[in-house]
Amino acid sequence: MIRLIGIDPGLRFTGWGVIEVDGNRLRHIGDGVLATDGADPVPIRLRVLHEGLNRVMAEYRPVEAAVEETYVNRNGSSTLKLGYARGISLLAPSQAGLPVAEYGAMAVKRAVVGTGAATKEQVEMMVRRLLPGALVRRADASDALAVAICHAHHRASAARVSSGQRMA
Amino acid sequence: MIRLIGIDPGLRFTGWGVIEVDGNRLRHIGDGVLATDGADPVPIRLRVLHEGLNRVMAEYRPVEAAVEETYVNRNGSSTLKLGYARGISLLAPSQAGLPVAEYGAMAVKRAVVGTGAATKEQVEMMVRRLLPGALVRRADASDALAVAICHAHHRASAARVSSGQRMA
Repeated sequence: MIRLIGIDPGLRFTGWGVIEVDGNRLRHIGDGVLATDGADPVPIRLRVLHEGLNRVMAEYRPVEAAVEETYVNRNGSSTLKLGYARGISLLAPSQAGLPVAEYGAMAVKRAVVGTGAATKEQVEMMVRRLLPGALVRRADASDALAVAICHAHHRASAARVSSGQRMA
Repeated sequence: MIRLIGIDPGLRFTGWGVIEVDGNRLRHIGDGVLATDGADPVPIRLRVLHEGLNRVMAEYRPVEAAVEETYVNRNGSSTLKLGYARGISLLAPSQAGLPVAEYGAMAVKRAVVGTGAATKEQVEMMVRRLLPGALVRRADASDALAVAICHAHHRASAARVSSGQRMA
């Protein structure tokens, strides 16, 4: 049995979700969204995200982290801001000693819904079905739980491979 | 008399430079470059940058920070990586309790050379002239000292304004 944290980074809202994995079984432990105030200077907002992630990890004690690698198709300024939030989301678990995996949005959708072309609504529906009890008050938390589920699948496959079994 | 740190962020190389400002006089205190290994996972590289900046601040004790807001005209992936490094460069001094200012490349060039159209070489030449003793073993350190000089000028102007004098 292992605890994973999934993180969906954003400067305004960073979603997080913690699940427990026991073989093929998944259990919802917690989820939420860290929000920063757009009126605050960016360095302060990054501190809020960093402290928030540290608080969540201290409370739920995950041992591995997975971060969503959001697709980059917006303008340079938005991408840079997303980069700030992703940088903090990669840094905080790494400082806490957790291995950090990264998954693209397509891989996450494929793992949760079965197709990389899934809509946000389909992802959220499947997250609620796979993890009864999830709060998911904002879509960011659903995406964070989805990346945690994606990591659960991939680490299971990797374990099968490393123990000499054929991948699914 | 006040100590400032300038930071020129990059995932591969992050330049830093510490200067002392006494009225109109500037003095070079230290400069260098934090390098990360491109073969390491990004979360580890961000930790190296974060730890490196903390080490520099612990050694030189600057009380204000200035970070260069590099112009964004590259592809999404490069911009995202720059965002990681900038995020860490804004976070670390903020966590150390320093106010953090940001300056665009044009403002930095204008402050150091007198024109926003200055070349890298002109910036480095002026940095060496304004700060005898600067090591500047890589251009990133020169850019970091330049953003510190830029901040020294702007905070002096701001001080003149707030004390009722006309800005230069």
